[in-house]
Amino acid sequence: MKKKRCAVEIPRNEDFPLWYQEVIKLADLAEHSAVRGCMVVKPRGYALWERMQKVLDSKFKERGVENAYFPLFIPLEYLEKEAEHVEGFAKECAIVTHTRLEQDENGKLIPAGKLEEPLIVRPTSETIIGESFAKWVQSYRDLPLKINQWCNVVRWEMRPRLFLRTAEILWQEGHTVHATAKEARDFALEIQELYADFAENYLAIPVIKGEKSENERFPGAENTYTFEGMMQDGKALQLGTSHYMGQNFAKAGGIKFLNKEGKEEFAYTTSWGVTTRMIGALIMTHGDDNGMIIPPRIAAKHVAIIPVLTNAEKNAEVLDYCNKIAKTLRSKTYHGEAIGVDILDDDRRAGEKAWDAIKKGYPLRIEIGARDIESGKMPVSKRTKEKQDKEFLSLSEIEEKISDLLDDIHGELFRKAALHREENTIAVNSLEDFAKAVKGEDFPGKFIKAGYGGSKEMEDKIQKEYGVTIRCIPNKQPENVDDCIFEGKKAPVEAIFAKSY
Amino acid sequence: MKKKRCAVEIPRNEDFPLWYQEVIKLADLAEHSAVRGCMVVKPRGYALWERMQKVLDSKFKERGVENAYFPLFIPLEYLEKEAEHVEGFAKECAIVTHTRLEQDENGKLIPAGKLEEPLIVRPTSETIIGESFAKWVQSYRDLPLKINQWCNVVRWEMRPRLFLRTAEILWQEGHTVHATAKEARDFALEIQELYADFAENYLAIPVIKGEKSENERFPGAENTYTFEGMMQDGKALQLGTSHYMGQNFAKAGGIKFLNKEGKEEFAYTTSWGVTTRMIGALIMTHGDDNGMIIPPRIAAKHVAIIPVLTNAEKNAEVLDYCNKIAKTLRSKTYHGEAIGVDILDDDRRAGEKAWDAIKKGYPLRIEIGARDIESGKMPVSKRTKEKQDKEFLSLSEIEEKISDLLDDIHGELFRKAALHREENTIAVNSLEDFAKAVKGEDFPGKFIKAGYGGSKEMEDKIQKEYGVTIRCIPNKQPENVDDCIFEGKKAPVEAIFAKSY
Repeated sequence: MKKKRCAVEIPRNEDFPLWYQEVIKLADLAEHSAVRGCMVVKPRGYALWERMQKVLDSKFKERGVENAYFPLFIPLEYLEKEAEHVEGFAKECAIVTHTRLEQDENGKLIPAGKLEEPLIVRPTSETIIGESFAKWVQSYRDLPLKINQWCNVVRWEMRPRLFLRTAEILWQEGHTVHATAKEARDFALEIQELYADFAENYLAIPVIKGEKSENERFPGAENTYTFEGMMQDGKALQLGTSHYMGQNFAKAGGIKFLNKEGKEEFAYTTSWGVTTRMIGALIMTHGDDNGMIIPPRIAAKHVAIIPVLTNAEKNAEVLDYCNKIAKTLRSKTYHGEAIGVDILDDDRRAGEKAWDAIKKGYPLRIEIGARDIESGKMPVSKRTKEKQDKEFLSLSEIEEKISDLLDDIHGELFRKAALHREENTIAVNSLEDFAKAVKGEDFPGKFIKAGYGGSKEMEDKIQKEYGVTIRCIPNKQPENVDDCIFEGKKAPVEAIFAKSY
Repeated sequence: MKKKRCAVEIPRNEDFPLWYQEVIKLADLAEHSAVRGCMVVKPRGYALWERMQKVLDSKFKERGVENAYFPLFIPLEYLEKEAEHVEGFAKECAIVTHTRLEQDENGKLIPAGKLEEPLIVRPTSETIIGESFAKWVQSYRDLPLKINQWCNVVRWEMRPRLFLRTAEILWQEGHTVHATAKEARDFALEIQELYADFAENYLAIPVIKGEKSENERFPGAENTYTFEGMMQDGKALQLGTSHYMGQNFAKAGGIKFLNKEGKEEFAYTTSWGVTTRMIGALIMTHGDDNGMIIPPRIAAKHVAIIPVLTNAEKNAEVLDYCNKIAKTLRSKTYHGEAIGVDILDDDRRAGEKAWDAIKKGYPLRIEIGARDIESGKMPVSKRTKEKQDKEFLSLSEIEEKISDLLDDIHGELFRKAALHREENTIAVNSLEDFAKAVKGEDFPGKFIKAGYGGSKEMEDKIQKEYGVTIRCIPNKQPENVDDCIFEGKKAPVEAIFAKSY
């Protein structure tokens, strides 16, 4: 049997991590930099982040969140204010100790101007933002306070993976202050909902909303709400988190307010964030053995037009026609954005250009040659179909149907991912079945649902013994939860266990 | 004579720097953080930056520039590749030397995990971006390459001033690579033009486009093109720069390409940037003794509606009407953005709310009470006029004229600043007159134009002796340039001398 031609040398089912790297390279999204752990986000990768930023930013603003900016550097003493917090980040932080360079006796440049107290490059900004909030919040009239910043954070990382695990991370971090516990927790949950909706309706990634177990909680949080996707290798990826902090950070940072009764009390805070890791999620959820597939609602460029230039006499006419289609499509919008069109007008053969568009993941391709112009019907290809699958449409049909075509692709991507997750989720109600599942030959590759009522110690034990962790305790619980498979006793919750990124 | 009531305690002409600080505080734009040299940009300040980003970003993209992202950290050896460059930044950089925290014997957290080679927090990214460009550029087909990043940079700064001089700076840095010197230089000049156009048509700040003298050039550049504004105290502020690097950074970083003849050669590069310093320029150009004035084309909120709630029975009706006006205005756009409206609906008196809107610099105020609704004519106030100046307009007139009203304000701000600059620019043609001008009692407060044909040494001498520097050699030169006032000989250029920020 002839082996099917694929653009990615290593198919997903042979070596998923290598396939992942290869797709990033073929789609020209990012690369490792010479600075250990840091990545370079290339224009095609950054365009995805820009679209994500734009959509999320407007959703945040609709909820009364305002953007601001806080310092990159955090004094060590701030970080120490919340005990769990500093412990959570101490092992992996970049520390600034000097403020200028000087030549030593051999003329070599060495750090000089030593700081009295070292500064930490922010791994997250609860403590430094708390410093400002303590000043800004005086009375219940100042609440709720809802602030977000788009910035970089640093967590020293020795085993970098592009988009998934890097020393420097681009993200947004929202921080809010509320007068009551209920309002704060509700807001953290509202943001979880916002994120999950974004993941499903823009990234086309079905997610499970749930709460993190004690072991996986943010250092210093009371509750960490997550939304988890299943990647094509069956592993879980946490796409982002929203934390309810209770009064922990308010007490650490002195965020107090006078309530309506004129009594001073500590406020309740939340924080929440998503990162460029979502780009990794896109690749691992939708990519195939031919490369990237960009979900249409997050694409900057929706359509690749491929001029087929085989007849010198007609090439100018073909290019004119391509420009005409491009102009028509660019004047239309899809999900509030002008439709993005690239004309691949270079001297490669049409087939090569088509493969290039496939690898880079344009949702739609239109190949246009002199004969297509004559017939008035253009071959339109969806990235979600086989390369040879084409639908022949007139320019007016393309114009009319473009939004539907893009929505179709979104739907296909979402349904495929949802089906994959469904097929790879199993429920077990005994430790024996759990052990069997974890040790089965198609593992990792499964989400395991099981009743769970254990402790932090039990979590450690499960991770050590079975190599899986609790990904979340889903918000949506079955009516009757089975007993805890680890401790036998009546389980309070159903949890999802899996390997994870 | 009764002293005129002003919102800012210290008038501009008494203490300009203190006035500046006070305006930032009253307009709630930013504050110093506890981290030395770093500032917190508050939501109202950040909103200005967001608008600037949006306008500039779309102008960059129109010119084929794509956004990307490069690492925060630069290995010391990279910085050393260009000799002038490292010298220019060595005296003021944040240096990361450790990667985790450990407890010492007393339980105190101290830096640990020492790096073999220290990392510099980027003061600018020519060298680290050059590392990528050297890989991306292979052939003339890859050129021009036009990349921009929006990010933070750090230059250690011991005398911080909000927006003007801070250790951490938010900016954009564009970096382009070209096949020829001419194309690169032309592009650097095109960006200077773009920036100057933005300053004049959005920030309402008249600027002089020119080239920096040798002393003021970017470390490593062949030419630094600037655009300079005159602040209300007569000092010059450099609003941004665009550098033509020749082959300096291409040689330092190995950015080579095969030209059309198949011969390898070094490329020509540019870099260019503007920062949140532009917000400082806005304040110092347009602010008055009552606070901030936000130029309408950069305002996120164009209109403050002030409900006058003096009659309990009619308050609900007044608020309804305010909401109706707000809704009408928000449905309209001004310079491509929805008109932003705040209703100051709180329990302060109307007069207090009006003062608050004045201090914060809303371009327009509309005060609405029950009587105004009855008469159908609303008092509309421009921030550029006296507080009591009001124009009475019906809702439909406001709707119809809103863009014109905002354009009027833009024009008034621009003309006022241009007139101020004109009145405070003098031409001298002798060293005697130069010295007199510099020592005159209204100095600083002048731009001095004079013929100049000196050297780097002469620049140092002028700065030392007269306390002024060459702000720029204007692109637009008079037909006949006077002799150099310092060296007598025929001057090649007319230069502008001034005190500067």
